[in-house]
Amino acid sequence: MNPVDLRLYGIVGPDNARGRDLGALVAAAVAGGCTLIQLRDKTSPTRALVETARSIKAALRGSGVPLLVNDRVDVALAAGADGVHLGQDDMRVRDARALLGPRAIIGLTLKTSADAAALASEPADYGCIGGVFATASKTNPEPPIGLDGLAAAVAAGRGAGMPLGAIAGIDAGNAAAVIGAGADGIAVISAVFNADDPTAAARRLRAVVDGALAARGA
Amino acid sequence: MNPVDLRLYGIVGPDNARGRDLGALVAAAVAGGCTLIQLRDKTSPTRALVETARSIKAALRGSGVPLLVNDRVDVALAAGADGVHLGQDDMRVRDARALLGPRAIIGLTLKTSADAAALASEPADYGCIGGVFATASKTNPEPPIGLDGLAAAVAAGRGAGMPLGAIAGIDAGNAAAVIGAGADGIAVISAVFNADDPTAAARRLRAVVDGALAARGA
Repeated sequence: MNPVDLRLYGIVGPDNARGRDLGALVAAAVAGGCTLIQLRDKTSPTRALVETARSIKAALRGSGVPLLVNDRVDVALAAGADGVHLGQDDMRVRDARALLGPRAIIGLTLKTSADAAALASEPADYGCIGGVFATASKTNPEPPIGLDGLAAAVAAGRGAGMPLGAIAGIDAGNAAAVIGAGADGIAVISAVFNADDPTAAARRLRAVVDGALAARGA
Repeated sequence: MNPVDLRLYGIVGPDNARGRDLGALVAAAVAGGCTLIQLRDKTSPTRALVETARSIKAALRGSGVPLLVNDRVDVALAAGADGVHLGQDDMRVRDARALLGPRAIIGLTLKTSADAAALASEPADYGCIGGVFATASKTNPEPPIGLDGLAAAVAAGRGAGMPLGAIAGIDAGNAAAVIGAGADGIAVISAVFNADDPTAAARRLRAVVDGALAARGA
């Protein structure tokens, strides 16, 4: 299992960038304290995806912050990204691991406590518990699981011995409660990348997360 | 460059199968004389794509007919397919070659004579000249190039020394003219996979192609 720092996981894509350059946005977010970056783009053609991933990877050079690509193992390989994030409809973790090798970071979306309990049998590096709150960044047909659902999923997934993040509708106002419910970090889209000042937004979120982790004794 | 038999290139996907099992359809098409198969599916999630590609690959076992995957190098790798077919918006041929290795079959769509002329500089194995006739299988914003456009593209691409196929609206009624215009084979979707009897449809198309190639002295 590869070590992953999930404290502030920034997920960027053309739909949530207000037309701004993704490489510049990512550099700004990392300057504010993002610890992990994911490119999530479900619509662009493959050639454009590879170019975008390469430009973000170049923007991250020297930062030590890894770049993961949502769903697309081919794009991650072609762009020299550090790994992939997989949903439950994406490639199976074991197939992605076979293609990417042992050093790649592979994360898996956990939509239910059953998904979280199954994480222990996956050759993954982290889990990310989805649908915590309502969000405008993604269409989620299921109702939000809330803090109680998050705590239950964390409990179900803890046996995997991997870091567990949380995603959906998380902002500076509720991030402390998310960490208090047991998550090891927060994944955000609009809270950082739709902000006028992504560096300031990331810095504030990171301070909230770090404070809540300290309060939890983590 | 890997040898590729483009004479009857069957392209299959869930949108053009009338709900029938793709593995069974492909086996029927190959029984009728298809020389190459492509899985083309622009909408299914990655996990389903990998499963479909594996089932088609299993259906092709022992036939000697290769399976290519449209666009998705990751799916081709995970499913053990024989290569990929790339459009002009898909991954660059050189990137796909680096990921798939020298023995994979890589084909490229050529939409214009300029694309065809550029084929010589690509590490590809064949070209497929698109948009020959009007088709219901794919939305093509450009007007069809017709037999004269096809002949011009073939002339522009011949210097690459690779086989050149043709696609869009090709059926048993016009296939001989397509071969007469210089194509080394025809790529078909609905002419085989929407047919009530894909084996009979493939057999008839293959006979037309073989006859036209013989008439051309190819």
